[in-house]
Amino acid sequence: MAIPMLPLIVRALRLCGALCLAILSLGAGVASASDAPPPVVVDADGTVHVPAMAVPVSSMLSPEAKHYMNDHLHDMQNPEKVKQRGGVPVFMEPYLAEAKAAFAYTMREHRVGGVRVFDYAPKAGVAPRNAHRVLINLHGGGFMGCFPGCAELEAIPVAALGKVRVVSVDYRQGPDYRFPAASEDVALVYRELLKSHRPEQIGIYGCSAGGMLTGMSLAWFQKHDLPRPGAVGIFCAGLTSSANGFGGDADYMTAAVGEARPAPAWPTTTPPTWTALPYFKDTDPKDPLVSPGSSDEVLRRFPPTLIITATRGFELSSAVKTHTRLVALGVPAELHVWEGLFHGFFYKPDMPESREAYDVILKFFDRNLAR
Amino acid sequence: MAIPMLPLIVRALRLCGALCLAILSLGAGVASASDAPPPVVVDADGTVHVPAMAVPVSSMLSPEAKHYMNDHLHDMQNPEKVKQRGGVPVFMEPYLAEAKAAFAYTMREHRVGGVRVFDYAPKAGVAPRNAHRVLINLHGGGFMGCFPGCAELEAIPVAALGKVRVVSVDYRQGPDYRFPAASEDVALVYRELLKSHRPEQIGIYGCSAGGMLTGMSLAWFQKHDLPRPGAVGIFCAGLTSSANGFGGDADYMTAAVGEARPAPAWPTTTPPTWTALPYFKDTDPKDPLVSPGSSDEVLRRFPPTLIITATRGFELSSAVKTHTRLVALGVPAELHVWEGLFHGFFYKPDMPESREAYDVILKFFDRNLAR
Repeated sequence: MAIPMLPLIVRALRLCGALCLAILSLGAGVASASDAPPPVVVDADGTVHVPAMAVPVSSMLSPEAKHYMNDHLHDMQNPEKVKQRGGVPVFMEPYLAEAKAAFAYTMREHRVGGVRVFDYAPKAGVAPRNAHRVLINLHGGGFMGCFPGCAELEAIPVAALGKVRVVSVDYRQGPDYRFPAASEDVALVYRELLKSHRPEQIGIYGCSAGGMLTGMSLAWFQKHDLPRPGAVGIFCAGLTSSANGFGGDADYMTAAVGEARPAPAWPTTTPPTWTALPYFKDTDPKDPLVSPGSSDEVLRRFPPTLIITATRGFELSSAVKTHTRLVALGVPAELHVWEGLFHGFFYKPDMPESREAYDVILKFFDRNLAR
Repeated sequence: MAIPMLPLIVRALRLCGALCLAILSLGAGVASASDAPPPVVVDADGTVHVPAMAVPVSSMLSPEAKHYMNDHLHDMQNPEKVKQRGGVPVFMEPYLAEAKAAFAYTMREHRVGGVRVFDYAPKAGVAPRNAHRVLINLHGGGFMGCFPGCAELEAIPVAALGKVRVVSVDYRQGPDYRFPAASEDVALVYRELLKSHRPEQIGIYGCSAGGMLTGMSLAWFQKHDLPRPGAVGIFCAGLTSSANGFGGDADYMTAAVGEARPAPAWPTTTPPTWTALPYFKDTDPKDPLVSPGSSDEVLRRFPPTLIITATRGFELSSAVKTHTRLVALGVPAELHVWEGLFHGFFYKPDMPESREAYDVILKFFDRNLAR
């Protein structure tokens, strides 16, 4: 606490007593780099009252990622940047320009099984090892937007670097459509691709809502007696939900450092809902078709599963919990967590950490899909 | 904010102006479950001013783990509980009693290569598949204590459940000894075991300081032309350090929710040191023998490596960064992160999450060690 403030604070304390004592001592940690930190209070039920703190950008990031983390936090507080223009959030426009400049690919818009897709391939053609393989991409966007923005950023680097075909599905979303519209669309595309591919040659992956939908699709396939695909990737997601995101500690711990927004209030006076997404209105969180993480029976039948998250990702808890559960059930599941980065960090392609993630994704599918 | 306080706060504000405005708005989030959360301020350099928040025990934990997390937080604030009696922190005494009651094992204290060890075996004898295998355990304790407490809690479940011999090393520690005393002791034990085992039949693992020492030992073996062991486990640790722990976001984000202590102040006026541990006094963080995470050349030569951490573990950032780096260098490395738990959570054996961790550890060594 800066010394000149001290007499004023003492006077403020005299005015409002014990509550202000708590308030002022909490504030002290933020107002200066005091060496007398505010206390941590733990309630009888284990709720931790975390004092205010200042958290620098992680020292472990590459210079590019430090810059990017900083930009992202400021973007998230700028209403103009989070708007979407033509299915692309404004803050993603430069990342999309980067991707289009950095990678040589082709894209063909058409219909597969009656569903609109963006069908990506490397410009020089798919690698011989991938001649019979195909990846289905399920884009992010909270089941209410971000097509084609998220789809392009998830599909272009994978198609170009992996020299593999990627079919990105424009599945039906909220608020116009509700569950199970998206699962039906994925199944239509999958059924059509099964006419030309063995299931073990098909991989499915997606980020955020697309990661959830990847898990939901596996449950849907099980229910409708479709064969299981060769491997899947659940990125920027886990297979649980909450009113505040994906559930667990990350709902609280990553809100400020990952998205520059306050943590949800706890305890809360609003009645709990299992998800805030309109697409899931009136669904039952115990239904494994919407919440596959709730069913060991469904999870047990998953193919090899790659899970990608980051320490500032609000999906962190759900992602690691999904991994732990899959492993306990005997599913070959792989977890990769990037330090100091956030939900969907690899949407910016021109960054060492994103390149690491692409490499992990490509090697995983190459190891696990049949030729 | 409770209504009766409001006039007092307005008066306090008049006294100290803008600073108090920030302080009071920050305090409001803690004082009540207000639906108007305090703002998140992001500095130009990306530092995030995280408002105070209340974080409940993770809803994703087992009932046993919820109880345990709560106990741990209260224990950490109780000076009597963190004291050590005979090399066992008081809060660990019940966990040790649990381990001794739950598992059938034998322990023989003797010397291997001149170094004192606790040599564990399952009471019914090692499994035939493990007849030629041995695990070296390097216990936690910040290089200044916790032998035999940490050693027993790391070795007994593994020896008993895995039906495998575990040699836990009483390596020299600070403040009486300094680097490289511990590395020398591990090498003495390893050299002696190499007389009766092939290196690929030997695994090494440890938690916290023992996880760091596992990595340091690999660097030491490389330097001294010792063969590399078959597989290693770096638990509750990563291969980087900081003045506040293991470095990265977790230094800040996990302090309150994992250990019930305040996050370090940022920016700090104290000169940065690379580690606060006396054992490392006067060492150079660029020396891969003390900080193997700093050297790609050393990491590249690691054997298959299992990394275990938890979302409230102050080693989280270092652990995931170490994993990411190993993977990028082509080392077969596996990461497992337990949601909602803390540094060394599996020291309590009678808990589903600990049993999951033991299972992961045992399967990893069984897959990766030669018979």
